[in-house]
Amino acid sequence: ESQVKEIRAHLVEQQKCLEQQTEMRVQLLQDLQDFFRKKAEIETEYSRNLEKLAERFMAKTRSTKDHQQYKKDQNLLSPVNCWYLLLNQVRRESKDHATLSDIYLNNVIMRFMQISEDSTRMFKKSKEIAFQLHEDLMKVLNELYTVMKTYHMYHAESISAESKLKEAEKQEEKQIGRSGDPVFHIRLEERHQRRSSVKKIEKMKEKRQAKYSENKLKSIKARNEYLLTLEATNASVFKYYIHDLSDLIDCCDLGYHASLNRALRTYLSAEYNLETSRHEGLDIIENAVDNLEPRSDKQRFMEMYPAAFCPPMKFEFQSHMGDEVCQVSAQQPVQAELML
Amino acid sequence: ESQVKEIRAHLVEQQKCLEQQTEMRVQLLQDLQDFFRKKAEIETEYSRNLEKLAERFMAKTRSTKDHQQYKKDQNLLSPVNCWYLLLNQVRRESKDHATLSDIYLNNVIMRFMQISEDSTRMFKKSKEIAFQLHEDLMKVLNELYTVMKTYHMYHAESISAESKLKEAEKQEEKQIGRSGDPVFHIRLEERHQRRSSVKKIEKMKEKRQAKYSENKLKSIKARNEYLLTLEATNASVFKYYIHDLSDLIDCCDLGYHASLNRALRTYLSAEYNLETSRHEGLDIIENAVDNLEPRSDKQRFMEMYPAAFCPPMKFEFQSHMGDEVCQVSAQQPVQAELML
Repeated sequence: ESQVKEIRAHLVEQQKCLEQQTEMRVQLLQDLQDFFRKKAEIETEYSRNLEKLAERFMAKTRSTKDHQQYKKDQNLLSPVNCWYLLLNQVRRESKDHATLSDIYLNNVIMRFMQISEDSTRMFKKSKEIAFQLHEDLMKVLNELYTVMKTYHMYHAESISAESKLKEAEKQEEKQIGRSGDPVFHIRLEERHQRRSSVKKIEKMKEKRQAKYSENKLKSIKARNEYLLTLEATNASVFKYYIHDLSDLIDCCDLGYHASLNRALRTYLSAEYNLETSRHEGLDIIENAVDNLEPRSDKQRFMEMYPAAFCPPMKFEFQSHMGDEVCQVSAQQPVQAELML
Repeated sequence: ESQVKEIRAHLVEQQKCLEQQTEMRVQLLQDLQDFFRKKAEIETEYSRNLEKLAERFMAKTRSTKDHQQYKKDQNLLSPVNCWYLLLNQVRRESKDHATLSDIYLNNVIMRFMQISEDSTRMFKKSKEIAFQLHEDLMKVLNELYTVMKTYHMYHAESISAESKLKEAEKQEEKQIGRSGDPVFHIRLEERHQRRSSVKKIEKMKEKRQAKYSENKLKSIKARNEYLLTLEATNASVFKYYIHDLSDLIDCCDLGYHASLNRALRTYLSAEYNLETSRHEGLDIIENAVDNLEPRSDKQRFMEMYPAAFCPPMKFEFQSHMGDEVCQVSAQQPVQAELML
């Protein structure tokens, strides 16, 4: 029957869809792995370049007087402090991107690999379950076909028995019609012959009647069987399409979204951690920029060269031999001039 | 005078310190420029690598059925949605790091260059002012030396005049002592001679007295001049060391810290902007990860293949030729069996 063929085609199609879905998942997970492997490479290279950059300028400053001062008292000119923090920030970025690369390689990618394996395994599992479900469904459909055929056969037999019965009834009527004719001119022998013929017909009619009843009953029973099986089949098909098929998809999906969620959260958390670290470093620099202060730098600058910036001794009065006066004298003759 | 020599050495030393400070600033600003130029290169390379990475996978997905679906109705399977957002994030990171590099090259470095030029210019300006201040100070010190020498000279002259006066007084006393002698045995002529001698001595004494008074007054005036100049000089030196020198340093510093602050804030703001953009992108991905949902994906999966997943038509009762009964029949003979 074409409807059964159609369902059989459906079942094959469904398996194909699930297989295709799994293939797409495996492909997606492969892409994700390739993507993160390549991104890990980029992050590593970026990290190395930043490290080299920091190292180059660190080496340069390590030899300067300022740096030795820094080691000693941590009291730097404010712009130099900013400069050192900039180099520290590059170092921090370098480390953070190396960590990111590391998490990609040793955690995120591993997870995607695992999910891919799990997807394939779960698809196989669902395929096994589907095989059993499909077999059961086919058995039901075959059963339906069988009982329908049985019904049709019995019904055909019943019709045939009925028509034979009707034929017998017709013959009987004909015979009764003939015996209703004036029989006076019929020979006794012939009459006898007719009676036995009537009897024969009656017997045949009875037999056919019995046959018909039997076939009729068989046909009804077969039809009932068919109707009940039909109902059961529709229920089975419905159950398969509404529940089992959904369960099969669920079986393929088992853990897929949750694992993907965890893997992507690992990625996100690594990225957010990098961001937090980066932000902390920038805040430290911002604080140093806030503290760019000419006054304290001037103080420090003058302290660095005390000999040059210390005010000298006061000039003292150099008295000439024996002159004991060392204040402005305002005696009479001078006073007038001083007044001017 | 050694104290003046010392101050002169100080002034030279101060200029050296300011020059050295300016050289260190110029060097620091050169380092900052080199640093940001190199970092801009690193950021550009990183940006290009990320762009290539995104492009590679974008190209791959653009051709797939899912992507065409995406273009059509934006209704993607939730893991595919996450995947596309990951690629978008890489693109965003690529753009943001390119922007960062751009700001380094076209803004931050330019600012450092400008500050370096300004520092040199301000140092030259301060050198000119210092030259004038040093000349003035030297004039004051020379003046002090001159008035001190004058005082010493006049005081020496005063001492010499005093001793000459004293000598005259001694002679007069001697003469008066002689004239106090009994004069009876002295000749008139001799007496006359003596009188003229006393007069001479008196005249000389008067002259020397006048000379001494004059010199004494000159000496006092010179000493006063010296004392006043001494005070003024000390005030000038004090003013130079406490105010002028500070002003000279301020002149070199003019705008330095403020400009450095602005340049570094430009850098910080670029970094914070990158961070904000990055964070926004991550939040979008996080939202998509929150929406990883097996139920809606199953729905969408089944809608993608309606032919395979749509429940088929119900199996209808196929009546055999002319059989008009299509319900379970429960007439007497069958009923019993149905009961079973």
